[in-house]
Amino acid sequence: MTDAADLTAKLIRCPSVTPIEGGALVLLADMLTAAGFEVQRVDRNDIPNLFARWGVKGANKTFGFNGHTDVVPPGDLGSWTHPPFSGHVEDGVIWGRGATDMKSGVASFVAAAIDFVTETPPDGAVVLTITGDEEGAGRDGTRALLDWMDAQGERMDVCIVGEPSNPDVMGEMMKIGRRGSVTFHIAARGVQGHAAYPHRAKNPLHALTRFLNELIAEPLDQGTDHFDASGLQITSIDCGNPASNVIPEKATAVINIRFNDLHTGASLTADLAERARKISEETGVTLTLEADISGEAFLTKPGPFVDLVRDIVTQETGRVPVLSTSGGTSDARFVKDHCPVLEFGLVGHFMHQVDERVPAAQIHQLKAIYQRILKEYFE
Amino acid sequence: MTDAADLTAKLIRCPSVTPIEGGALVLLADMLTAAGFEVQRVDRNDIPNLFARWGVKGANKTFGFNGHTDVVPPGDLGSWTHPPFSGHVEDGVIWGRGATDMKSGVASFVAAAIDFVTETPPDGAVVLTITGDEEGAGRDGTRALLDWMDAQGERMDVCIVGEPSNPDVMGEMMKIGRRGSVTFHIAARGVQGHAAYPHRAKNPLHALTRFLNELIAEPLDQGTDHFDASGLQITSIDCGNPASNVIPEKATAVINIRFNDLHTGASLTADLAERARKISEETGVTLTLEADISGEAFLTKPGPFVDLVRDIVTQETGRVPVLSTSGGTSDARFVKDHCPVLEFGLVGHFMHQVDERVPAAQIHQLKAIYQRILKEYFE
Repeated sequence: MTDAADLTAKLIRCPSVTPIEGGALVLLADMLTAAGFEVQRVDRNDIPNLFARWGVKGANKTFGFNGHTDVVPPGDLGSWTHPPFSGHVEDGVIWGRGATDMKSGVASFVAAAIDFVTETPPDGAVVLTITGDEEGAGRDGTRALLDWMDAQGERMDVCIVGEPSNPDVMGEMMKIGRRGSVTFHIAARGVQGHAAYPHRAKNPLHALTRFLNELIAEPLDQGTDHFDASGLQITSIDCGNPASNVIPEKATAVINIRFNDLHTGASLTADLAERARKISEETGVTLTLEADISGEAFLTKPGPFVDLVRDIVTQETGRVPVLSTSGGTSDARFVKDHCPVLEFGLVGHFMHQVDERVPAAQIHQLKAIYQRILKEYFE
Repeated sequence: MTDAADLTAKLIRCPSVTPIEGGALVLLADMLTAAGFEVQRVDRNDIPNLFARWGVKGANKTFGFNGHTDVVPPGDLGSWTHPPFSGHVEDGVIWGRGATDMKSGVASFVAAAIDFVTETPPDGAVVLTITGDEEGAGRDGTRALLDWMDAQGERMDVCIVGEPSNPDVMGEMMKIGRRGSVTFHIAARGVQGHAAYPHRAKNPLHALTRFLNELIAEPLDQGTDHFDASGLQITSIDCGNPASNVIPEKATAVINIRFNDLHTGASLTADLAERARKISEETGVTLTLEADISGEAFLTKPGPFVDLVRDIVTQETGRVPVLSTSGGTSDARFVKDHCPVLEFGLVGHFMHQVDERVPAAQIHQLKAIYQRILKEYFE
């Protein structure tokens, strides 16, 4: 039987600060190869990625797991009770960067998959996609794995992303979708002038203030069946004009929108561009927008796959998980273009924090849940 | 007869970049002493100022002039056709920093006053207040002179500030008042958080945008008999948040208000503070304001003094000057607490610019106007 808690500690000892491989994928590749998986490194632009399949390519039923071994930087080393890459174990708790996000999740599904195919070889395939670039730009991580799979004719019927999905206790939440996220960089360009002679100038800050105020005055929507209302946040406004008697020429703003399935990155871009165009026309200040769509909203609608996972989580934890679409983005935003995808993992406490740690018992429970999902999926 | 154009060139050759004396006040003090003026340096906090009176202290009729010899920095020396402190004269044009703002104005009233008291000694007094700090902070310039005059029992019945008052041609405009100016530094402090979880944060940029939008949504007023509408300009908004997925904790803004006689610095401060208080209460974001009142609005109402100057300008230039209250601030904002004050001087072209220059003929004309004003005032 593969010990997922022990594997977590070993992975923590690989200093894989994003996007450094740090030995983590090599360790997993060796284990999976030994267990009979076909293993392939799918690096792209120096970003390390690992693909592993048990069973034949294109099998009738293929179950997928996705996760990442890269971690965010540890920050101030002196603030840690135990060194962040020590994988220190004490009183049943494993300490270190990645303990919750998400070396434990990867260890759980790797251990579950190995034990499952060893103990009850299924009529089908199990595919694991593990990236070393989820915490960074994410351009050459899970996306590269999925691109490669498409090119190779590799497939998954369903996939679980093993990110921490429970806010406080195991079993309370699984994610069946995510809001989308788009960031707009807005530049306002007017005509500089003296504050006492505004008729000779065009103040970019006035046009920008009007534009931004329009955007925050009304909510974007009221939410949908499975989604909260979309949210818009102004994250910066900058001008840097040191002279209070001068009307500046330029100013910039950044806004971030987390949107539900009523919108797409494109629909929001079109809406904001039209509002900007009107204000530009009325004020003579040119407002330009650059949209950076980091993910579209998606939803894996309740059905057999969702039911299977929910029922097993309920039986194993005694809690009926909420089907949530809350939170930030994850690599599920890429996987959803490939097959139905869910997220279920550990409790998210301590993610990205100093003294990140996880009880070993939680890891054992997660591994058991994953293994039972595999078993019942193929039955 | 004193040559005001020649004196202008000599003053330009004194490199009196604010607040450096540069020899300018020493030169004037010597000339005025030689012409029978009582002269006194009234420096305060190392800022140089010059007081000069012809005639007895507390005379029945006392006419005042005010001006400054300090200049703004020349900027890039290589951009000047002639060195900025050369006082180069060519084809009847005098070149250099201060040629229009306002060594020429000072030279004109000094020459006019000397020739007037020499040729037609009046029954009364002529007082000149000349500062070396108008272009800078202005705390210890004309204010120091007026404080000192109060303490000494010195007085003026009326005063002309010799700042350039004509936009394009001599005689088209004199100033009988000025709008006030107040700058507000606004700080917004909320609660930092993740852009995907705004309910756990309080976005200072949203409160600030709402506040600023309220201020620019409606004009402050529609203007008064002698004043344009008050104007409000946002001159900077700054946050400096580099992370588009983070709601920042703090942001700042600066606004400048040029206000007419419907407002005071205090009334505007109270109005904005009340608006800020309401938004703070509604949003949980603390908005704090610091007001820097650089001058209150004032008006020298049309009457004998205004008529005298207007009539003489009309006769000497062939143009009836508009009685304006437009533009930025000047030291008239301090003098108005002492006595009725007007501004009339040269054409303001080239002020603060590279290749600042002035036709000598314009200076001769201004000197003639000043001398005639003195003559008719005392008749």
